Amino acid sequence: MGLTVTEKILDDHLVEGDLVTGEEIGIEIDQVLTQDTTGTMVWLQFEAMDLDEVQTEIAAQYCDHQTYQFDFKNTDDHRFLRSAAGTYGAHFSRPGNGICHNVHRENFATPGKTLLGSDSHTPTPGGLGQLAIGAGGIDVTVAMGGAPYYIEMPEIVNVRLEGELPEWATAKDVILEMLRRLTVKGGVGKILEYTGPGVENLTAPERMTITNMGTELGATTSIFPTDEQTRDYLARVGREDEYVEIQPDDDAEYDDEIVVDLDDLEPLIATPSMPDNVVPVGEVAGTDVDQVIIGSCTNGAYEDVLPAAKMLEGRTVDKRTEMIVAPGSKQASEILAREGWVAEMMAAGVNFSEATCGACIGIGHVPASDSVSLRTFNRNFEGRSGIEDDNVYLCSPEVATAAAIAGEIVDPRDLADELGDLDDPGFELPDEYDASKADLIEPDEAVDDELIKGPNIGEVPLREGIDDVAGEVLLKMGDNITTDHIIPATQDILMYRSNIDRLSEFTLSRVDETFAERAAEADGGVLLAGENYGQGSSREHAAMCPMYLGVEAVLAQSFARIHRANLFNFGIVPLVIDEETYDSIEQGDDVEIEEDVHEGVASGRETFTVRVNGEETFDATLSASTRERDILAAGGKLSWTKEQAASGSQAAADD
Amino acid sequence: MGLTVTEKILDDHLVEGDLVTGEEIGIEIDQVLTQDTTGTMVWLQFEAMDLDEVQTEIAAQYCDHQTYQFDFKNTDDHRFLRSAAGTYGAHFSRPGNGICHNVHRENFATPGKTLLGSDSHTPTPGGLGQLAIGAGGIDVTVAMGGAPYYIEMPEIVNVRLEGELPEWATAKDVILEMLRRLTVKGGVGKILEYTGPGVENLTAPERMTITNMGTELGATTSIFPTDEQTRDYLARVGREDEYVEIQPDDDAEYDDEIVVDLDDLEPLIATPSMPDNVVPVGEVAGTDVDQVIIGSCTNGAYEDVLPAAKMLEGRTVDKRTEMIVAPGSKQASEILAREGWVAEMMAAGVNFSEATCGACIGIGHVPASDSVSLRTFNRNFEGRSGIEDDNVYLCSPEVATAAAIAGEIVDPRDLADELGDLDDPGFELPDEYDASKADLIEPDEAVDDELIKGPNIGEVPLREGIDDVAGEVLLKMGDNITTDHIIPATQDILMYRSNIDRLSEFTLSRVDETFAERAAEADGGVLLAGENYGQGSSREHAAMCPMYLGVEAVLAQSFARIHRANLFNFGIVPLVIDEETYDSIEQGDDVEIEEDVHEGVASGRETFTVRVNGEETFDATLSASTRERDILAAGGKLSWTKEQAASGSQAAADD
Repeated sequence: MGLTVTEKILDDHLVEGDLVTGEEIGIEIDQVLTQDTTGTMVWLQFEAMDLDEVQTEIAAQYCDHQTYQFDFKNTDDHRFLRSAAGTYGAHFSRPGNGICHNVHRENFATPGKTLLGSDSHTPTPGGLGQLAIGAGGIDVTVAMGGAPYYIEMPEIVNVRLEGELPEWATAKDVILEMLRRLTVKGGVGKILEYTGPGVENLTAPERMTITNMGTELGATTSIFPTDEQTRDYLARVGREDEYVEIQPDDDAEYDDEIVVDLDDLEPLIATPSMPDNVVPVGEVAGTDVDQVIIGSCTNGAYEDVLPAAKMLEGRTVDKRTEMIVAPGSKQASEILAREGWVAEMMAAGVNFSEATCGACIGIGHVPASDSVSLRTFNRNFEGRSGIEDDNVYLCSPEVATAAAIAGEIVDPRDLADELGDLDDPGFELPDEYDASKADLIEPDEAVDDELIKGPNIGEVPLREGIDDVAGEVLLKMGDNITTDHIIPATQDILMYRSNIDRLSEFTLSRVDETFAERAAEADGGVLLAGENYGQGSSREHAAMCPMYLGVEAVLAQSFARIHRANLFNFGIVPLVIDEETYDSIEQGDDVEIEEDVHEGVASGRETFTVRVNGEETFDATLSASTRERDILAAGGKLSWTKEQAASGSQAAADD
Repeated sequence: MGLTVTEKILDDHLVEGDLVTGEEIGIEIDQVLTQDTTGTMVWLQFEAMDLDEVQTEIAAQYCDHQTYQFDFKNTDDHRFLRSAAGTYGAHFSRPGNGICHNVHRENFATPGKTLLGSDSHTPTPGGLGQLAIGAGGIDVTVAMGGAPYYIEMPEIVNVRLEGELPEWATAKDVILEMLRRLTVKGGVGKILEYTGPGVENLTAPERMTITNMGTELGATTSIFPTDEQTRDYLARVGREDEYVEIQPDDDAEYDDEIVVDLDDLEPLIATPSMPDNVVPVGEVAGTDVDQVIIGSCTNGAYEDVLPAAKMLEGRTVDKRTEMIVAPGSKQASEILAREGWVAEMMAAGVNFSEATCGACIGIGHVPASDSVSLRTFNRNFEGRSGIEDDNVYLCSPEVATAAAIAGEIVDPRDLADELGDLDDPGFELPDEYDASKADLIEPDEAVDDELIKGPNIGEVPLREGIDDVAGEVLLKMGDNITTDHIIPATQDILMYRSNIDRLSEFTLSRVDETFAERAAEADGGVLLAGENYGQGSSREHAAMCPMYLGVEAVLAQSFARIHRANLFNFGIVPLVIDEETYDSIEQGDDVEIEEDVHEGVASGRETFTVRVNGEETFDATLSASTRERDILAAGGKLSWTKEQAASGSQAAADD
């Protein structure tokens, strides 16, 4: 049987398991990336593992979310990250150098390699034939230590592209069309592999716009085969020697197939407030626009901004509209500046910003109240822009720029008809991405050889093995508690992301303000919850903080998948109970698990006995793989990895 | 008797009083400017006075402090300001277009005209022979309504410049030398008029660096005569027809004279944390530098950034150091971009930012903890950068860039010796300031004809008359309390600038976190301070918020000029006490003014009796003009202006 592109790369990196859909596989990781909101914890964990040096071929630390440094904690984080990269042998990209995905694709992304990154848009270089997956911070830490990454083998879906994009339709419209068809849940548990005759009509950067935003489909990752377009891009970034051809075998088999005819596409737009609320631009034409932003990891490259610059040449932004360009990387800024486009855009009325994630995550250029913002970004979740009840639309740079010129949403084809002298700017790569690398500090140029920790950079909490579970029910919660309930994601709280001692004070504060203080005072204890505990984001702080406060186990009727994995990773026992048990236990009750928990977890015990207030007993279930049990018994992934390293068996430090 | 430059302009604009030092004069205002932190209140007051239209020749509304728009409140403010400018007939400079002083000097500043601005660095165009004074927002409001501006005729000091700047010494070093000699109080009650043979050796932009930072001397304003350098600058900005020659008469008499020989100057630096802690750079050479920022209204013009760009050509910023360039205006950015310097600086490792006040007021690029930052700004008050215990140095772009190259403070002359190929870049103007005006919306291009108020735009607080002064000493402070102490200028606080109810919660929080709550709970009360209370910015919130919290009087050994005026304008009685009195009163004491305060203020009483804890008594002095007394007795300028308008006598709307 022939292999898909995905299978070829996985096969090449497989260290455990078989490539059978739904089965757990362990794969070797060649490259890791991390950024400044997740990176501090990654390196604190790396330090806690007592490892000397990064073991992957490439590890790269970027500073992109907090480039503006509006609090010293951000600047301290950046300094710490520089010192960690220097100390342990990672590349360090200075604040201002650009967004991780953009800088990574320019400098490191390589066909056929695996990449694990602690950012959800890590799949971006899938457009270059790299198998790139987003993961939690500790997974990245462990991979950086040389251990395999474990994942349930996803379905592989063939997204067959036919034809060629017509005028004014772009790669952004390809992924918006995918979102329109599949919705934001349509890719869950899947890898989207693009194939077909339309592929060769898309340049590598266009492909990367599509793979970047595959994240919004919920896909594990997205990937393209490699071909002359891939080689061409690598040549322009000065890395042609890293090209390898990877094509699916003719008889490759896929779990499913979707066909997209590029000829049929037209300018699309995602209306507020979900990336899959996609309609043709014409359907919302005439809507007044207060703000337009070009940028982000989806459409922030040189070749994404260039069409906007060309459209603005000799024109000005409408006086009702503010237009901001925040390029994805300083490389993009530098080339645009060198070619005169920055001056042209400024002359047109553009506010040219630093290379930063910025507005995409609500940091800077927050829209005015009751206003409309068009952005070339990948997400428009309500409130993400920094204001509740926002009206954020997602579209291509061409559609965004047309709106800036007109002061209202307009199909660029109609604007071109109206103006008479506006042509589709096309999509053009520079002959050579000729820009400085002064802001990318290589491991052998490092300026630090020890960690520099400001006062907000704390310690990594570590649980050394698990012990008996016995203590108070610290909090009884209902159904559908989210990770936002457990650790709120607001800026005033998340700025303590490197300081678990401080951050943990906010644990479950949205459910009960007294919780953190009570938990800290209690000597251990458990949480009690209804159905679907821990739904929402992959934020590992939602497990780390309860662990820090001494929570030993969560008794719930069911767990959300990613949070359940995080509980294993941080040494909290996730026990499933039935409704009757849930009803019988109250907050403040004393609970005790009668069995030796460590032994039971390690040996494969599925049923534990919970005694309440020394009287009644109930059953609680632990269903987990051997690997998950090993991790939990060790007290979490960090302790487990240290144990592995110490015992020399499949050591984290092995390559 | 001959006239000084100052007297010639004042004489030309005099509508009340005589040009006798210490006497109150009323002058006609030709131009006003306001920015986004002070502007919302200016326009709310303009609206509250029921005025229809701007009466000055030029009124310009800039958006510079909150260009980054970290919160929708900033963006709402900008939209409100655009709508106010449109509604009432002012020019509107869009966010991103630059700092008020820079954009104003490029577009509007005119020799011989008067300018009143609600920003403390309004004196900047004094370097072009404009008499430019910083004032509280309400003074600007009233002037914009066509009423005269009243001021106590300052002393006029002749600052006689001789010689020529040697290599590597700059205009920044002239003003740093002035600060070294005179201290931050040395210019209080004075206008510094530059004369002498050295003047012609300074270009107009160099003069404006000096007049800009004259504010840090406490001067009412600073001014240069006009000459071929002035004409030359105006020609380059396309306004040569606005040139008029204004020179002091040969027999002009000055109140005092200071001589500065430019030949003797060398690179200087203000060490933390006061602009007058000035030493030769060599004295602090070798200090590691974490951050360098070029920009601000003092040294953010094209010609200020150009030397940095030239010094960086073919070099890179030290890997230990972050270097940010935030130009003073988009005009500067655009020309630097057009000439290729933006690309060059980026290639050297510079993070090129938006045109914004930004870091100068602690908004963005906050230094890391326990780090050193060199900035070309005008203020380094402790904590202003956004972190307490900061180490901010002030210097020329040349000294800052030398530090960025070396990674440590270094005298650029020594660095030049060391490198061998580093020359003094000199100071060079572009042939023509050829940049777009797309972001400057003229009154007849306005897009709004009614006010747009977001939910954070509140009401103007009003005190209706003053009553007896009796209450607790709510806070005892030392010398040199700045407006940054009174209302911190950090982003998280200033975003409430249009919402006094919320903003007042932060009043004096940097001195005592409990103050605002205590003041709000107390039924009235007074503040006690040492020398130079209220130095720093023109921010009238520093009077408005204490008024809102019920503060009735400030007892201080001396007051900074603009803040003193703001106290009158918001109905707080500013009483001068001597050192013994200051020492005798403690926080928490009950104080009472024995006289009928309203009657005493209105009738011209100069000495009031302060009884402390019902026992000992001290004298306190109110020295104020009749007009100031009328305003204070009315409860502040807004109440007074409304009263005047109601009574029909000398209405604010009169021209």
